[in-house]
Amino acid sequence: MTYIRTRTRLLISARKLFGSKGFRGASVREITASAGANLGAVTYHYGSKANLYAEVMDRLFDQLATRIEQASATDSAPADRMRAVGAAVFGFFTQAPDVPRLIVHQLSLGTTPPDAILRHVRRILAAVERVVQAGRARGEFRPVEPVLIAFSLMSQSVWFALAGGTIGPAVFPGVDRTVLARKIETHIADVVARALDAGSDSP
Amino acid sequence: MTYIRTRTRLLISARKLFGSKGFRGASVREITASAGANLGAVTYHYGSKANLYAEVMDRLFDQLATRIEQASATDSAPADRMRAVGAAVFGFFTQAPDVPRLIVHQLSLGTTPPDAILRHVRRILAAVERVVQAGRARGEFRPVEPVLIAFSLMSQSVWFALAGGTIGPAVFPGVDRTVLARKIETHIADVVARALDAGSDSP
Repeated sequence: MTYIRTRTRLLISARKLFGSKGFRGASVREITASAGANLGAVTYHYGSKANLYAEVMDRLFDQLATRIEQASATDSAPADRMRAVGAAVFGFFTQAPDVPRLIVHQLSLGTTPPDAILRHVRRILAAVERVVQAGRARGEFRPVEPVLIAFSLMSQSVWFALAGGTIGPAVFPGVDRTVLARKIETHIADVVARALDAGSDSP
Repeated sequence: MTYIRTRTRLLISARKLFGSKGFRGASVREITASAGANLGAVTYHYGSKANLYAEVMDRLFDQLATRIEQASATDSAPADRMRAVGAAVFGFFTQAPDVPRLIVHQLSLGTTPPDAILRHVRRILAAVERVVQAGRARGEFRPVEPVLIAFSLMSQSVWFALAGGTIGPAVFPGVDRTVLARKIETHIADVVARALDAGSDSP
């Protein structure tokens, strides 16, 4: 196994195990075993479990922030740009269902996230802020703190991504998974649009 | 140590350890050691770690559901009743900061919650539904599924309770903790009010 292969396999195994068990729950022994590497491989390639975790989160949040930046940076009306941001978040979580779990595990640690995460959180906040400013400048959005809008969007998206598969079927019995996801995505987009809307009640 | 005392001490230790480490992360050994009981005490008093967990969650969700029911069952206008529900959730999480962590740990398990939780979730949904119906009947709320409103309220409250102490200070540097909590509580209440409001844009 080459140097690069082992590095990559450690990342993939770590992402999977951090996602299912959290940072504390996933042991170096499990990560290396799952990657088919020896026990010292995490230290050799990443220095520590904390660094490996930071690397996993850095990559995922980089992808998420990039998608949000792309969705937000269009010539569309601010309200449509905000809907596109929501769709980008939702789409990312649907494609990579371990990401909301990783985010929630990070939150449950109760510690300040590593810089690798905060750097991308600031990119996300900046992208949302640009859309809010554009809407404010056109008189279409009311004065809401962009940080709070970003939090409303992220909290609901992460929650629905996680609870959709467990509590969802219990409270929406018989509703198809895809229909449920579409229903929820529309709801979150509506909630955020209404939170921002300066004009009539129909955004 | 009496029978009842050990039972209660196990509950207290379990709540603390499940809150900090999650269901999987907290071992029976740690729980019994922290309660000053012998290793067999969990099996003796509760049958299993899963039953002890269900008992902890049953009590907490019972308290949360009771608070929400009380806050929602007043003669006030539906919009005010919904604000009172939000304040009840927020107040409960402020008083018992391990509760949002327990909720998030449960979500991150990716499994259907035990009946002990679902029973109270249904009470919460029913309370929210009664307020939404009252608002609909008076033409003050638009047609939104009560379940989605309850999810919007809970997701944002849990998220803010958890992230407020970690990401909060990073993105609102220098803002006092109490001021930040007030600001966030108002924001969540506004977001939910606007999601429901059928009339003008100023609820």
